Amino acid sequence: MITSAANKGIKNVMLLLSKAKERRKQKAFAAEGIKMFLEAPVSRISQVYISEQLAKELETAASFAVKTAASLEKEASALSDKLASLKQSGQAVAEVVKTDLFNKMCDTKTPQGILCVVRMPEYRLEEMLEGDGGLYLILEDIQDPGNLGTMIRTGEGAGLSGVIMSSHTVDIFNPKTIRATMGSIYRVPYVYVDDLADAIESVKAAGVKTYAAHLDGRIAYDKENYCGAAAFLIGNEGNGLRRETADMADRYVRIPMLGKVESLNAAIAGALFMYEAARQRRN
Amino acid sequence: MITSAANKGIKNVMLLLSKAKERRKQKAFAAEGIKMFLEAPVSRISQVYISEQLAKELETAASFAVKTAASLEKEASALSDKLASLKQSGQAVAEVVKTDLFNKMCDTKTPQGILCVVRMPEYRLEEMLEGDGGLYLILEDIQDPGNLGTMIRTGEGAGLSGVIMSSHTVDIFNPKTIRATMGSIYRVPYVYVDDLADAIESVKAAGVKTYAAHLDGRIAYDKENYCGAAAFLIGNEGNGLRRETADMADRYVRIPMLGKVESLNAAIAGALFMYEAARQRRN
Repeated sequence: MITSAANKGIKNVMLLLSKAKERRKQKAFAAEGIKMFLEAPVSRISQVYISEQLAKELETAASFAVKTAASLEKEASALSDKLASLKQSGQAVAEVVKTDLFNKMCDTKTPQGILCVVRMPEYRLEEMLEGDGGLYLILEDIQDPGNLGTMIRTGEGAGLSGVIMSSHTVDIFNPKTIRATMGSIYRVPYVYVDDLADAIESVKAAGVKTYAAHLDGRIAYDKENYCGAAAFLIGNEGNGLRRETADMADRYVRIPMLGKVESLNAAIAGALFMYEAARQRRN
Repeated sequence: MITSAANKGIKNVMLLLSKAKERRKQKAFAAEGIKMFLEAPVSRISQVYISEQLAKELETAASFAVKTAASLEKEASALSDKLASLKQSGQAVAEVVKTDLFNKMCDTKTPQGILCVVRMPEYRLEEMLEGDGGLYLILEDIQDPGNLGTMIRTGEGAGLSGVIMSSHTVDIFNPKTIRATMGSIYRVPYVYVDDLADAIESVKAAGVKTYAAHLDGRIAYDKENYCGAAAFLIGNEGNGLRRETADMADRYVRIPMLGKVESLNAAIAGALFMYEAARQRRN
């Protein structure tokens, strides 16, 4: 059992949780919580840490088939199965961490007792643009980690093919972003691009129609047809899309707003666009 | 100038920022930031605190018509005008607070130098239900202050007539909720109700059709007609609507989700429902 904060693995997890630079260097991120562990692809998990408390609960549940803590009731066997298959495949063996230390290591207020280190997937823009009728988000400098995570979660639900982000967009493996994705982080393809204008050109060259979400848009967002390949450009929370970026889009579209509302939250705007496309595609 | 944290007014602001109970007792809340001050109804502002730094910037801007800090450029005259009209109407005179103390008092990381104490509005469910074709949100135990604030902001944009909340819903005057509303807090009517079932009965009796957002819904949310008076029931982030609550609704409706997404963020679900109603009503 790991009992010291000086343990190399623990120190590394804390680095991965706090530093985007370190995540990029190691091409790995730390994902906390039962759901995030259960949904992580086995082939990409390199380390698993489990609190002494959770380890004991799982052991008890397995040996005596007793009722575990309410939060664990459903997941105990799924957790044990996944831990076993990770061990069997030689991917990773869970290391038990003294509960106090485990909780100190975590980024959350109420840690669930499990955390895994996951290798980043690698996606390429060209691959993302293959196939017909894709649906894309192009994000310029989104800063709020929760907004980004929520867009990824909503995007999976709406059938998103991929997210293209400017290099100044918040890190997708920020712990708050990961949590907000509720697992969609493992499944929605994404790329960061150094030159957003170049990327938009590539998107357009692939036959994808591009729509800038903009307060100056004359066309209401539900008056366009998104049944073909479509990409929505969403700008930074405070400033919206830069004019040069918006001007690259095939169309300026806006979300009609009543009352004195000047703009909507970026994740809400993204959701309305993506689900309008999903609605049209279903009908 | 106020220089001590022992000042009664400062102590009270800190109470109002941190304690929902205190806000309810005083029927007042504290709203931070330039936008929240500018949009606050003059008749409801009882106190204004301004940092020494902002006070100086405004003075300089007024006397010499010089360029103020970038963030203030547009707002300097609006701020001065509003401060003057508050003084003239006898509502409140801004008190200058030493900048360090002002920043310590605030809930935000980067305070903007102005904070006002605002009397809560009082809305009644009966009044909210008057008129035809209303659009309502009924929230059961929403816990995340950002989600609540975002729903109020989006709701104003979609033409919401009011928000009805269970007593265990997070406080609408939580500083995080206020910030997320971006000013809509001053304009969207709301009520907290002790008995949500009773309130739903009143809503239905007023001729409003009720829709429970539920994963078990068989009807896709865009297949119903929301052009008449409509209310959407949205449940707690972790557990969704309680079965007894959902069963009171006229219809169970769901948002179709692709991939492995099990649910959407509560504020996103609320936005999709409200904007689907807005879309139908425009067309």
